[in-house]
Amino acid sequence: MLNERMYHYGAERSVIREIFAYACERKAALGAERVFDFSLGNPHVPAPPAVRASIERSLATLSPAALHGYSPAGGLPEVRAAVAASLNKRYHMAYQPDDVFMTVGAAASLSCALNAVVTPAEEVIVVAPFFPEYRVWIEQAGVRMVVVPAQAEDFTLNLDALASAISPRTAAVIINSPNNPTGVVYTREQLSQLADILRAANNQRQEPIYFISDEPYRDLVSPGVEVPWLPELYEHTMVCYSYSKVLSLAGERVGWVLVPGTMPRSAEIQAAVAGAARALGFVCAPVLFQRVVMDCVDEAADMTAYERNRATLAEALRSHGYHFVEPEGAFYLWVQALESDATAFCNRARNFELLPVPSDSFGISGWVRISYCVSLDCIQASLPAWKALAESYRS
Amino acid sequence: MLNERMYHYGAERSVIREIFAYACERKAALGAERVFDFSLGNPHVPAPPAVRASIERSLATLSPAALHGYSPAGGLPEVRAAVAASLNKRYHMAYQPDDVFMTVGAAASLSCALNAVVTPAEEVIVVAPFFPEYRVWIEQAGVRMVVVPAQAEDFTLNLDALASAISPRTAAVIINSPNNPTGVVYTREQLSQLADILRAANNQRQEPIYFISDEPYRDLVSPGVEVPWLPELYEHTMVCYSYSKVLSLAGERVGWVLVPGTMPRSAEIQAAVAGAARALGFVCAPVLFQRVVMDCVDEAADMTAYERNRATLAEALRSHGYHFVEPEGAFYLWVQALESDATAFCNRARNFELLPVPSDSFGISGWVRISYCVSLDCIQASLPAWKALAESYRS
Repeated sequence: MLNERMYHYGAERSVIREIFAYACERKAALGAERVFDFSLGNPHVPAPPAVRASIERSLATLSPAALHGYSPAGGLPEVRAAVAASLNKRYHMAYQPDDVFMTVGAAASLSCALNAVVTPAEEVIVVAPFFPEYRVWIEQAGVRMVVVPAQAEDFTLNLDALASAISPRTAAVIINSPNNPTGVVYTREQLSQLADILRAANNQRQEPIYFISDEPYRDLVSPGVEVPWLPELYEHTMVCYSYSKVLSLAGERVGWVLVPGTMPRSAEIQAAVAGAARALGFVCAPVLFQRVVMDCVDEAADMTAYERNRATLAEALRSHGYHFVEPEGAFYLWVQALESDATAFCNRARNFELLPVPSDSFGISGWVRISYCVSLDCIQASLPAWKALAESYRS
Repeated sequence: MLNERMYHYGAERSVIREIFAYACERKAALGAERVFDFSLGNPHVPAPPAVRASIERSLATLSPAALHGYSPAGGLPEVRAAVAASLNKRYHMAYQPDDVFMTVGAAASLSCALNAVVTPAEEVIVVAPFFPEYRVWIEQAGVRMVVVPAQAEDFTLNLDALASAISPRTAAVIINSPNNPTGVVYTREQLSQLADILRAANNQRQEPIYFISDEPYRDLVSPGVEVPWLPELYEHTMVCYSYSKVLSLAGERVGWVLVPGTMPRSAEIQAAVAGAARALGFVCAPVLFQRVVMDCVDEAADMTAYERNRATLAEALRSHGYHFVEPEGAFYLWVQALESDATAFCNRARNFELLPVPSDSFGISGWVRISYCVSLDCIQASLPAWKALAESYRS
């Protein structure tokens, strides 16, 4: 019998993907340069040259069977070792290859991590605004999503609200810093305080609450901004990573889940991550791109491009009277809509071929997300439209 | 809280993958050429040259953002169009690009298809012996697996047993032809009769029973063998395909689900497939290999290599007194164990560094699967060991 829940997920689609599809249609009708698609986190910045070099090296040096054959479920041992070594160097840890489970991108990382440490009827806490797909993956895991709003002014963590949201059914808290959609990076101090809150709660219960740290934007931050390494602050932390953003490989689907061997019951949780991957229908991460990860594990994103995009957009929006959060990381500008209904604002923006994403599916009202990982040309060409949109609210 | 079901799936691992891991250890200890790993369906036959040409073409001609960026969830429109056109040409159909949903390989195809058309507490029928992961994916979908043994002599369909197994809760029947592990290809006549049985059952109920046709081996058959196109025989058929075997791309994870637009309620089922993919944590199929599919959609597998492997192995095993099914497709030899306990037989085979897979996890006892997609050298080098193993049962 048709599964109504799956039908619903497919028919509603993600709001972001719906705008992306609309953008494709408009571009086909008007020409790509006349449509300002700020919907998707699809990096326009090219992958670093080392990515192509890695692909060419694999094609030139590997035996045909090794080149495209299955890897073990958790990834090629040498790839897991390279990721562990890179983390050890950067964060002064002592992770083993087995602590790293290679995945088919961030969505797979989150799904596997969630399914490993939650059981039906439990609760998972998310901070609003949040990446809309969290809701789908949490529901799929059979648990309830508990939404805790961020601080209204600056979108940092609201620790009092988080403490109040913890219940005996809380299984995990998803932390996403640098944050999508706000660009906020949580400070070491705030995260330490939250860790203390969880530890206090854990003292009242048998099973610990987990941090699931969703970090696809970890390596896209402004100069000098620290992204604290969460497993250092809280022992029950799983880290979910993806190379979609840092290496501009969004369509190739490769990332990892880290379950530190130092975590209590780590061997069981590592097995549960592998079991979740198996049950959800993942076999292994795409193997050519596993080797790309190995070869590019310490490559940096081209932050100058993102900084230039942000500065150009931010300066113009400010001058036209828009209010927004000054982002410290990721590549999103979180802008207050010029009317209380963000969807109505976005519909009006469509008259100017501007396509931001309304905040409603992120769990709060009245804001929009502008993804500035587009070309600088697109941003510059859009500026008169942003001006005209603002003026349309004044006339 | 640790999810015990996921832990269990991860801790037990797949038997096949466990043997594969054991093989890797033994090869490291003894040298690769002294261990005869017949566990995995990991093609040793190289991918056709057109695969490399496609990758090189993409690297040479696409803009950086297009090269590795997200595709729409169901795949690049031109890729879906190429697959539909190829099917239309081969099977005289009129599929549209939207009928094809690109997936992250066969496991994803099956998971998405299952979750689209089953709802918890329903039943899914499989024919034993069956690919062991079916059990995991069916359980994950929250439904009960009903096992119907194939005919004992030749492993064709047992139509009477299938008819008896249908209940008001039956949601789908998984058909896998060419079959893994037996290599049997079901005839048009048998499949038509089964379709008639399902149609008769459908007349007694509101919702139809679906065929989920798992076809990764469709294009690996002996000359002159017909693999009937199931949607032609039964209107409620979803086809699951993968390029792991035909293009030797097992590690790259790319395939598709076809929901023919001619199927009743096809638009809803297509949406449910997309929704299942979304809920399970798939975002899109790896995009570089989507383009490989487009460029190689009509490439054939190198069947001469598989035929040579099979002939070499079959002839030797026959001469040593083994009994096996003569396969018409796929690349597995299904051999009767020389004692009733297949696991005990496989354990004894390990003394000779022979690593077939016991039949128990395939749902029947007393047989083993030998995957002959290895090198001819491996097969030839293994022949004395197969002889010695047979002799060990006579002495």
